[in-house]
Amino acid sequence: MLPFSRVSIIGMGLIGSSLARAVRAKMPTVALTVHDADHAVRERVRDLDLADDVADTAGAAVIDADLVILAVPVLAMMKVAASIADDLPAGCVISDTGSVKASVLSDLSEVLPEGVSIVPAHPVAGTEKSGPDAGFATLFDGRWCILTPAASADVLAVERVREFWTRLGATVEVMDAAHHDMVLAVTSHLPHLIAYSIVGTASDMESVTSSEVIKYSAGGFRDFTRIAASDPVMWRDVFLSNKDAVLDVLQRFTEDLTALQRAIRWGDGEFLEALFTRTRAVRRGIVDQGQDTDAADFGRKH
Amino acid sequence: MLPFSRVSIIGMGLIGSSLARAVRAKMPTVALTVHDADHAVRERVRDLDLADDVADTAGAAVIDADLVILAVPVLAMMKVAASIADDLPAGCVISDTGSVKASVLSDLSEVLPEGVSIVPAHPVAGTEKSGPDAGFATLFDGRWCILTPAASADVLAVERVREFWTRLGATVEVMDAAHHDMVLAVTSHLPHLIAYSIVGTASDMESVTSSEVIKYSAGGFRDFTRIAASDPVMWRDVFLSNKDAVLDVLQRFTEDLTALQRAIRWGDGEFLEALFTRTRAVRRGIVDQGQDTDAADFGRKH
Repeated sequence: MLPFSRVSIIGMGLIGSSLARAVRAKMPTVALTVHDADHAVRERVRDLDLADDVADTAGAAVIDADLVILAVPVLAMMKVAASIADDLPAGCVISDTGSVKASVLSDLSEVLPEGVSIVPAHPVAGTEKSGPDAGFATLFDGRWCILTPAASADVLAVERVREFWTRLGATVEVMDAAHHDMVLAVTSHLPHLIAYSIVGTASDMESVTSSEVIKYSAGGFRDFTRIAASDPVMWRDVFLSNKDAVLDVLQRFTEDLTALQRAIRWGDGEFLEALFTRTRAVRRGIVDQGQDTDAADFGRKH
Repeated sequence: MLPFSRVSIIGMGLIGSSLARAVRAKMPTVALTVHDADHAVRERVRDLDLADDVADTAGAAVIDADLVILAVPVLAMMKVAASIADDLPAGCVISDTGSVKASVLSDLSEVLPEGVSIVPAHPVAGTEKSGPDAGFATLFDGRWCILTPAASADVLAVERVREFWTRLGATVEVMDAAHHDMVLAVTSHLPHLIAYSIVGTASDMESVTSSEVIKYSAGGFRDFTRIAASDPVMWRDVFLSNKDAVLDVLQRFTEDLTALQRAIRWGDGEFLEALFTRTRAVRRGIVDQGQDTDAADFGRKH
């Protein structure tokens, strides 16, 4: 039996539109209603035929849903949740797809009524593309989806959301929201922050032209530009709402980078080689656990 | 007519063995002699049949060459060059594949005899793999190869090296060695340093386990681990021999990252969004110029 029969998705960007496609593909009998605040996006979603109904307001999209998923930037969650609070059917489950969880859990809890179950979720999947055309049904296949319900959350609601994501192809973990935010600060937020930063630094060099930076980017830089092409508003919100964890790991990173800088300045080759050897082991772990292929993609062909 | 007929390659790692394979594939009539200081590598190269002759000493490998290419870590160049100085035929051309050029040009000039032509080269190509098994003949196809001869270099020798790399599939640029080192500090050396550093930082977290870092690496971190799996000795030498340029761009990067850190601490969303929007344009430039594909590889499937 399907965990939910009437699903509503608010926000039809990369993640929301991938979710819609995945629901259509994996649970075709689900009645699917979607909404996006942007009129042009709604029109595009209609053209792409991604849902049974494209509602013109968020409230209208949720009135008979048994699962509502908010797939909007993290700092927009509270406002969207407040706008649908009066329209939510009693007993419905509210989830989301935000990359930060403690603030979202707190924001949703503040504005949503008693009688709905809040089960925050973070599918650890995405690309550097944005918008409804960028989504695809298999985005969540074999990826992790982390649920961060409050300790007091309804156990059955959590299990239904777990079943929902499992049917979409994801592997579900349940985790404390604060711990999630620290783990993702390391594995996702800091890498994005650094990628954005280095692309900015490279663009601002006076002695090296932008066209040279682009021309010789295959030596490593282009991989950073891919990450730094991700959605600006989504990432602005991630950094602002996971501030403490991001600043903590950023401080550690800066210390480590400063130690490297010192080793270079003083010609400490042993220090450098020891670190560079140690980091190889981490790569092996990632490949061994199927989180990336072993193909030499860094030197990829065109 | 081929630019060279007797080519010698010293060092049979990823780059040297790719060169050997490419010479075999694109200039099959060239007599190819190779050498590696590591006995096991020489045996492997013999098994793989990558050259006409695998010499047991560097000197023996070069005695009748008209082109000698040193494909060894940057700080090993001088010693290797000194060891073959007495065996080099008059009129032969010496080149290399090092990622740093000013120090290599200086080192080679110091130990090589009059009567040989020095034409340093840097093929901007590679993968995160190492060793003779990692090489492939098409590594240089469509990639840049930067030549950095001294102003006093023999023009004909430079043209012959240009022709050599062009036949291997590369597009050749000629550049001042110091400028090369600054360009590559931005596009390659700093990205590698940061990737090594962040992988080290993530491994050292107490509140997040290594297995969690690996498990949730698809959110951005895994791309850094790929770069940070590159050859430790090669990269140690790059940082030590391009110290000034690396420290210069690293200082700029740290300033920019500190500004981002401050924006996060003070909740300056406009600052963040403006940078994140600007960096997208750089990505578009790289895709438009064919230095990477537009495929959403960041969310790659397995």
